[in-house]
Amino acid sequence: MQLFFQYNWRVREEWFEWCKNLTDEELQQKRSGGVGSIIETLLHIIDVEYSWINVLKGEKIIDFTIREYHSLEKIIRLSGELQSEMITYLQNWNIAWENENATPPWMDGTYKKGEIIRHVIAHEIHHAGQLSVWARDMGREPVGASFIGRGFIPEKKAGYPAF
Amino acid sequence: MQLFFQYNWRVREEWFEWCKNLTDEELQQKRSGGVGSIIETLLHIIDVEYSWINVLKGEKIIDFTIREYHSLEKIIRLSGELQSEMITYLQNWNIAWENENATPPWMDGTYKKGEIIRHVIAHEIHHAGQLSVWARDMGREPVGASFIGRGFIPEKKAGYPAF
Repeated sequence: MQLFFQYNWRVREEWFEWCKNLTDEELQQKRSGGVGSIIETLLHIIDVEYSWINVLKGEKIIDFTIREYHSLEKIIRLSGELQSEMITYLQNWNIAWENENATPPWMDGTYKKGEIIRHVIAHEIHHAGQLSVWARDMGREPVGASFIGRGFIPEKKAGYPAF
Repeated sequence: MQLFFQYNWRVREEWFEWCKNLTDEELQQKRSGGVGSIIETLLHIIDVEYSWINVLKGEKIIDFTIREYHSLEKIIRLSGELQSEMITYLQNWNIAWENENATPPWMDGTYKKGEIIRHVIAHEIHHAGQLSVWARDMGREPVGASFIGRGFIPEKKAGYPAF
């Protein structure tokens, strides 16, 4: 499970770098599908991930609005801060928790923690796929989506990254 | 890992159903990003998954060309046939295999089986994200990408699906 977060966070870093070449107008331009613009997609990915992880942890939900996080710089900072906050929980993710229930306060229904963690993973990959089409619409090369070739499982177990 | 395949295959089924409302022209129309058309994306997802699973199994690679699989009907049939062939391997997926090496004949480089299985999972989710933008471009509601709410981890373990 952790390897998927490593992947998502690495790809997200690359999209952040990619976005540094765009104007504010390009970042904010309404586009078809998804949540409507590149900047809103990035904030949405971060917000949804953090909200669900807080559901898993049984902690309070915080909303991050585009009005407050309207610049790439603010979003990149927010992403880093929230990752630092979530990393311990994710590193300690235990397969025994998969069948435990969790209830998001913004929805009717209770879900298994194993469903929620996969939902978060799939959610970011899905939205990154949308970004890749918008990139081509803009005539730009999108960030690569490959999982292999990034060395997430290195040759020697001794060198296995902590996260 | 199996739950992600369940998810991808369920979402794929829904895209197949969704595609039944399109004309051949709409299915084949060149679109920006990805592999270029809806029908080619569906074949690409199926082909890439099957190729990598055969790399994991140490079996021969077969190419499926759009010239041969040019209709939705043929692609749906192919998807079902290949899933039947792969399901036993996926059901028996063992975490002990994660650090084993596998070498795809079409690339330079050796990858860990744990990387490859995640690559396959992320690959389909990524392309489904692209389909969702194209759907909106066509003024249509895309297939939902949610992992939760599909009952992949049911309440009682006794009712846990085999796959």
